[in-house]
Amino acid sequence: MRIALLGGTGDVGEGLALRWGYHADHDVVIGSRDPDDAHAAADEYESVLESHGRDRKITGFENAMAADRADVVVLAVPPYHVADTVDAVSDRLDAGDILVTPAAGLQRDEDGFHYHPPSAGSVTALVADAAPEDVPVIGAFHSLAAGRLADLDADLDVDTLLLGDDPDAKGTVAGLAEDIDGLRALDAGGLANAAEVESLTPLLINVAQHNDDLWDLGVRFQ
Amino acid sequence: MRIALLGGTGDVGEGLALRWGYHADHDVVIGSRDPDDAHAAADEYESVLESHGRDRKITGFENAMAADRADVVVLAVPPYHVADTVDAVSDRLDAGDILVTPAAGLQRDEDGFHYHPPSAGSVTALVADAAPEDVPVIGAFHSLAAGRLADLDADLDVDTLLLGDDPDAKGTVAGLAEDIDGLRALDAGGLANAAEVESLTPLLINVAQHNDDLWDLGVRFQ
Repeated sequence: MRIALLGGTGDVGEGLALRWGYHADHDVVIGSRDPDDAHAAADEYESVLESHGRDRKITGFENAMAADRADVVVLAVPPYHVADTVDAVSDRLDAGDILVTPAAGLQRDEDGFHYHPPSAGSVTALVADAAPEDVPVIGAFHSLAAGRLADLDADLDVDTLLLGDDPDAKGTVAGLAEDIDGLRALDAGGLANAAEVESLTPLLINVAQHNDDLWDLGVRFQ
Repeated sequence: MRIALLGGTGDVGEGLALRWGYHADHDVVIGSRDPDDAHAAADEYESVLESHGRDRKITGFENAMAADRADVVVLAVPPYHVADTVDAVSDRLDAGDILVTPAAGLQRDEDGFHYHPPSAGSVTALVADAAPEDVPVIGAFHSLAAGRLADLDADLDVDTLLLGDDPDAKGTVAGLAEDIDGLRALDAGGLANAAEVESLTPLLINVAQHNDDLWDLGVRFQ
């Protein structure tokens, strides 16, 4: 499976690239607005994987070129860049490619972090509105702490929730998620259920901030 | 500690009454709008506890009478009755009593359950607005599946998140929560962080509905 991580120079992209390189052998393509940044990140991730005994080829391209090369395109960009990023790559997506969105809208105030969705109702809905009609959108990987994901020596032992209206695409992304050791994929229903899933992101930050012995938190449904 | 469970004839009240009777020896008072219902539930819970080897006295009263007798008052009523219930018992609360709110506003549509807060922003905020000024409000017990709570043979092994602006009251409720075997209390910050905690309730229902092998779900932060 060829996976493009748009915004793959950021911390979520790094974590997913390293985990897919380490636990599986997917063809990972790093995308960035600046192709030099994408090349540099790809080289860095290759080095990390090599130091963990994995000889993987990771490539880097400008976002649209990265999307063009992939079957699954992960929007690992901040929520305020999600719509622009989809617009910038839309004509490079083929029918049947899958767009994956892990972003959640957050706002911080003096009390903590709060869920602050865009006017579409959720970041997931924003992506679905911007995506070409023949490209299914799947929400996934919201509740993963980027630092823990990128630390290949750290056990995950957490769940990720999948959102989507296309069962085949959801199954594909569930498979990719479960290729990562310690990550269990659970179905949270259709795209309309996204707000409650995205709300986990600020909640996890708040819980980590208020409990001394917890950090880089994930969640397990049991 | 004397605990009143208002709306204690319902499933959340039943679960908390049984767990506090089974794992601890708190003085549990069941409240209901109808005192006969409260008596009947109290008798039933005593019988369940007796069948599990616990000889406990549980009493039942009309809500205001139950609140009058307690140090900690749990609003185990549906979200649309929360404000009325606080109004009905307010003049029976002493300074320093603690009001605990486990309710979350839900709405169901064809896609699943969604978080539907009241105009106050959260059910927790609604309670805080309605409570007397000298009675601290703590949000707790939102993410517990009532059926599992009421099944004394079921292991819990889940977390509950506490919300509140009064550290002493939060500490008291954390202690009550952790009196229940298998329940870990985590601090989710101030009352202003309530919406993300209450959003867990519809999320847990959606996840249980979409995964065949999961039901009566709780959550563990790890």
